[in-house]
Amino acid sequence: MDLYSGYINKLIEELAALPGIGNKSAQRLAFHIIGMSPARVNHLADTIKNAKEHVMFCKVCQNLTDEEICPVCKNPNRDRTTVMVVENPRDLAAYERTGRYQGLYHVLHGAISPMLGVGPSDIRLKELMERLRNDEIKELIIATNSSLEGETTAMYISKLVKPAGIRVTRIASGVPVGGDLENIDEMTLLRALEGRTEL
Amino acid sequence: MDLYSGYINKLIEELAALPGIGNKSAQRLAFHIIGMSPARVNHLADTIKNAKEHVMFCKVCQNLTDEEICPVCKNPNRDRTTVMVVENPRDLAAYERTGRYQGLYHVLHGAISPMLGVGPSDIRLKELMERLRNDEIKELIIATNSSLEGETTAMYISKLVKPAGIRVTRIASGVPVGGDLENIDEMTLLRALEGRTEL
Repeated sequence: MDLYSGYINKLIEELAALPGIGNKSAQRLAFHIIGMSPARVNHLADTIKNAKEHVMFCKVCQNLTDEEICPVCKNPNRDRTTVMVVENPRDLAAYERTGRYQGLYHVLHGAISPMLGVGPSDIRLKELMERLRNDEIKELIIATNSSLEGETTAMYISKLVKPAGIRVTRIASGVPVGGDLENIDEMTLLRALEGRTEL
Repeated sequence: MDLYSGYINKLIEELAALPGIGNKSAQRLAFHIIGMSPARVNHLADTIKNAKEHVMFCKVCQNLTDEEICPVCKNPNRDRTTVMVVENPRDLAAYERTGRYQGLYHVLHGAISPMLGVGPSDIRLKELMERLRNDEIKELIIATNSSLEGETTAMYISKLVKPAGIRVTRIASGVPVGGDLENIDEMTLLRALEGRTEL
């Protein structure tokens, strides 16, 4: 016998299929949604549909946006000769939050991962190559994650781009600001040591 | 400047308003949803709407169900003289999963909490009283949570019902099966001691 009604079970299944939501959270969410007012529930469902319908990729940097060209690429005050390559829109948002980076971006929507079967053609590298051919880009700052996939992607792009005479840099890897050395993993400590600079 | 497009921001806000979903999870979920196929997104949105539209309270036990009377209350093999009182449908499901309880249920949809301003009239107690008047109930097993609110509710119901000559019992509180004594809080240890039984 099913413990919940068919409609509740279906909702729990749908929610549990989302990333980071286990079966217990899905149950809690489902009952919360059923307890919400009909207007709020419709609003939630419509917001989900609307986001999917209206959001597209920026024609230049591949970031998700409501318009053909995203606000960053449109901004005439940004330095168009520098492009930061990130894995996803959340990483772009993280750097925008610093308020200090003045260049443009390129969003790959993933990273190369032989383990997961993600190859160079599965991320938006072709679009990056096109920009490098057509635009006046002088420096490519690779800001992929400091993970195996992120490093692989960084190496791949670097090998591909350097022959064209474009400067390729990689963001530093090391101890986070305010981080307690004793709580930091060995790989990071070694990276911080390797990347030490003169005082 | 907004870091994300308006539609993404709205979706993140909606998701972050759900219980147990913080801002970071909401962002991750929003981007996951935007990356899903249009058909899957529509299915998710429709499942949410359908659950809200079609799920109602069982006329007898107040559990959430697709029909007027829920499958448990309809089942002719259940013992109709015993009713277990639980706070919410998830608690009912937890006892159903044991496969051993043969009586009926009553779902309060909450617990009395003076702190949160939840009084006896805010939970489905009136419906329970009506069942006690009209049905041939001999025992009420109070299975509200072992929290302050759950205990308050148990005491309240017990005082209300006992004068009518109905047997009122409370599920045992103590050390969970497989629990390591050293990891269990003092209140539970004291409860287990108080509730000790002869071997």
